[in-house]
Amino acid sequence: MATTYDLVILGGGPGGFDAAVEAAGSGLKTALVEAAELGGTCLNRGCIPTKLWLGATEPVEALAAQAKMRVATGSVHIDLAALQARKDKYIAATRKAMQQRLAQLGVDLVPGLGRIVGAGSLEVATSDGPKALSYRNLLVATGSRPGSFPGLTPDGVRVLDSTGLLALPEMPQSLIVVGGGFIGLEMAQAAQRMGAKITLVDALPRLAGAEDPEVSKTLEAVFKRQGWDLRLGVKVASVKTRGDNAVLVLDGGEELSADCALIAVGRRPNTADLGLDALGVTLTGAGYIKTAAQLLAAPNVFAVGDVNGRMLLAHAASHQAHYVVERLLGRTSEPYESGPVPSILYGAPEVFRAGIMAEEAKALGSSVLVSRAQLIANPMAQAHAATAGFVKCVWRDGKIAGITAVGAGVSRLACFATLIIKLGWTREDAETFMFPHPTLDESLKAALLADKEAA
Amino acid sequence: MATTYDLVILGGGPGGFDAAVEAAGSGLKTALVEAAELGGTCLNRGCIPTKLWLGATEPVEALAAQAKMRVATGSVHIDLAALQARKDKYIAATRKAMQQRLAQLGVDLVPGLGRIVGAGSLEVATSDGPKALSYRNLLVATGSRPGSFPGLTPDGVRVLDSTGLLALPEMPQSLIVVGGGFIGLEMAQAAQRMGAKITLVDALPRLAGAEDPEVSKTLEAVFKRQGWDLRLGVKVASVKTRGDNAVLVLDGGEELSADCALIAVGRRPNTADLGLDALGVTLTGAGYIKTAAQLLAAPNVFAVGDVNGRMLLAHAASHQAHYVVERLLGRTSEPYESGPVPSILYGAPEVFRAGIMAEEAKALGSSVLVSRAQLIANPMAQAHAATAGFVKCVWRDGKIAGITAVGAGVSRLACFATLIIKLGWTREDAETFMFPHPTLDESLKAALLADKEAA
Repeated sequence: MATTYDLVILGGGPGGFDAAVEAAGSGLKTALVEAAELGGTCLNRGCIPTKLWLGATEPVEALAAQAKMRVATGSVHIDLAALQARKDKYIAATRKAMQQRLAQLGVDLVPGLGRIVGAGSLEVATSDGPKALSYRNLLVATGSRPGSFPGLTPDGVRVLDSTGLLALPEMPQSLIVVGGGFIGLEMAQAAQRMGAKITLVDALPRLAGAEDPEVSKTLEAVFKRQGWDLRLGVKVASVKTRGDNAVLVLDGGEELSADCALIAVGRRPNTADLGLDALGVTLTGAGYIKTAAQLLAAPNVFAVGDVNGRMLLAHAASHQAHYVVERLLGRTSEPYESGPVPSILYGAPEVFRAGIMAEEAKALGSSVLVSRAQLIANPMAQAHAATAGFVKCVWRDGKIAGITAVGAGVSRLACFATLIIKLGWTREDAETFMFPHPTLDESLKAALLADKEAA
Repeated sequence: MATTYDLVILGGGPGGFDAAVEAAGSGLKTALVEAAELGGTCLNRGCIPTKLWLGATEPVEALAAQAKMRVATGSVHIDLAALQARKDKYIAATRKAMQQRLAQLGVDLVPGLGRIVGAGSLEVATSDGPKALSYRNLLVATGSRPGSFPGLTPDGVRVLDSTGLLALPEMPQSLIVVGGGFIGLEMAQAAQRMGAKITLVDALPRLAGAEDPEVSKTLEAVFKRQGWDLRLGVKVASVKTRGDNAVLVLDGGEELSADCALIAVGRRPNTADLGLDALGVTLTGAGYIKTAAQLLAAPNVFAVGDVNGRMLLAHAASHQAHYVVERLLGRTSEPYESGPVPSILYGAPEVFRAGIMAEEAKALGSSVLVSRAQLIANPMAQAHAATAGFVKCVWRDGKIAGITAVGAGVSRLACFATLIIKLGWTREDAETFMFPHPTLDESLKAALLADKEAA
């Protein structure tokens, strides 16, 4: 008789993998079904390769900052072929380590596309043919993929999605980026450091539209100074490969041309072909799985990560996965609480955000105050010759409720800021905490202690 | 009739300046007596100029790390004359801003050497002759200066202290550093990035002797790989200028020679010539002011910062200064509590420490466990091609009591780590906190969740 698993997980990205490790480590009989590679988008086509690109190209940025101060001279050249080899090797090694971890813990890894055939029963299309799996609990963690719009569909020749760009053997001399969200901004920066001239187009009137508008302003100022051609608030009619070029046509008819174009216009959930309707799981209009307070999509069916559309961030997926396993083990019966969720844009500048933002609070009719500090007053920002940016705090009822920052290195504030929001720090808490000196973190101290004003 | 000040402060370094700003801002009639420059050692001859050197030279380090991975090629040259001009300009501008701040708040800045002439009464040797000041409360924040030993006295020619090195117009091709503490290590790193061949000598058998021994081991391995000639556990008989060289003679007779030598063998308190005996203030054997639980050295006489010898760190001085002003304002009558004190070594690698270390706990007979994570497993360490190092946690009674880390960029853990020690986090707290991904901070998460073992 076939095994009935305590938990079957669809998808081996951050949410699914972490759930498998925790569940198996706690004694649950667990299977993980993965149609492509362990690690999902984050490891293979997202956060990690992008960070390897940004890390490798950082010397270009660091030199440029000091050269502008006339303190340093020189040149840095990035060998993209070598970088790609290093990236691919690191990712493969990480996947292998993940696989070994699962094996050690006794997780059955089933490679293939899983499809629900009824309550408690799943069929996986493996390379050896269909394989049936029985489960007591199912976790759907199938993630998301790059989105596209009519006329904005990557053709894999000169018009690429993020996966295609990250696989390029050499950097084009010019790149049109469609989409000014985090993915577009990180890739554009890495590409520029490797020599690409950047044109960035977005239908929104500002970069990083999910962020505080003051953050967008700083980003726009910095990238303009770096020579980017920013086309904001304009709609794209089409992007196509024409000969050796990617040609973008704006709604007004103007044409822009470059060696390549990157389409980075958001992501779409992987919910098709899973057989979710067999279980009565419902989807949102955009195709995300609807989940109740306990991340349940149907009885004994949980959904975590991008696929539930709550928060498209790897660490949100991991956090939700931890909750689901705790719940399966009977350690909690409370609804899922994310707490303040940190998000980070890497590059130069970096952006960090956690908790509620001023605009958001105002839209909710909540009365908030804000306080700010500029990075230019911070000696570490001065030492790195990267002084554009600020830290902004949002206060509600005398307690810190949200923090955002933009500027070189501000991601270092993320954990601390998230924690003090969770704790609901007051001004007095900030006064009595010993911030080390000199640190960029003191810009957060300065913002916490600055005079508050209406948002 | 002359003013009687609520508070007279001796010394305008971080402790004295912050006390003046807070006291005057809260309505206390305040005078600040400073014999040299506002900002003290930290701004003028310590933390800040060193960080400007390290920041400016960081592109050298960043390029070297990626070049070792064969991902980047190129060269970076630092123009020390330009860097010195930038440093001097920044420091002068900061001093001016501090002066303006004091003026705005109505603090009387009295330039000159202050000397206590009796309880409530002080005489300042100003350039216009002696000036008498009366006070209700006195705060001594006169700081410290570079120390020396017989035979190890900077002569200002080829044998320099940190002040002398920071004023050099061009970098010597070779530098002997006497002292493997934080000052010696930061300066040696900056000097090496500007082309100096480093020889480092210390009587202690390991670098950074105040840190966890495992931290010392990593530092030694990294600096050896960078080509430093490390001479640890050896005593120095003398260092002298001989012709165009600094010549160091070891106790065994061996001679080492270089273009310059830096003496960085600790610091000495500035307590002489202050007239402290007139008030019955007592000093330790090393000359530090003894302070009781409320930072009192005598009735209505407080001492903060380096001069009380509690903790020779700028942020400790500021934290103590805040306490003293709170006490003067009647807002606290509790004894002074520092909480966990973070300390940071900058450079590559960085070192961070807060709370109790394993060796320290064992010496106190306290039973502790430790847990560790290596940076090589962290994707951001991989992205920056700087994977040497680790995070180590010290646990007491199931709560986190100390954290140290060594490796590129680990200073970013400092605030968060200090706070979770203050909060006494358990393993469960670490499990339920949402660490952003990918971040170097996840190496702290990994250390917090790793298996604990005997220290």
